[in-house]
Amino acid sequence: MSARDINLSSRVTYLVCYDIANDKRLKKVFKLCKNYGNHLQYSIFECDLSPRERTRMEVELKSLIKSTEDQVLFVSLGPAEGRGDRVISALGKPYTHFDAPCYVV
Amino acid sequence: MSARDINLSSRVTYLVCYDIANDKRLKKVFKLCKNYGNHLQYSIFECDLSPRERTRMEVELKSLIKSTEDQVLFVSLGPAEGRGDRVISALGKPYTHFDAPCYVV
Repeated sequence: MSARDINLSSRVTYLVCYDIANDKRLKKVFKLCKNYGNHLQYSIFECDLSPRERTRMEVELKSLIKSTEDQVLFVSLGPAEGRGDRVISALGKPYTHFDAPCYVV
Repeated sequence: MSARDINLSSRVTYLVCYDIANDKRLKKVFKLCKNYGNHLQYSIFECDLSPRERTRMEVELKSLIKSTEDQVLFVSLGPAEGRGDRVISALGKPYTHFDAPCYVV
């Protein structure tokens, strides 16, 4: 495995949070995010992404959103492996982390 | 300064994200979170909290939410100082980080 392969296969966990001003675009963004990660809350997904997947997701999101009205935040939580369970904690309904999500390749 | 003081003064940045099933509780949670951090998106705040502030915020939130219907997630982004600018990035409308928020003491 080359250094490039290692780099491309290393996944980072992101919270992907969106504010979308239009219902039609909101549905499309929700559908797109579902392909990349786990739905945590109303407008938040948790996605373990390789650099290539992150780039692809950004390109696809950019084609859906209106940049003057909508916002999508990518919040890096660090490497997907070995980050432990204490990064996210919940009050009220429990937080469920799926250890083996289906990756989009 | 004792080791305990150092521990209490160290701040961690959290994303505080909530799904609240009831409008009245939602307004109260929003108002509470405004006391602790910056409003990033519809139901997301960015809060730099000392351990004492985090405990107090959790106690206050627990008194407002209904644990079977609502959820508040605390997502740790690591130490508030020196985490750099690359943890959060935005598509669409820009992400604005306030370097000198007003802390609740």
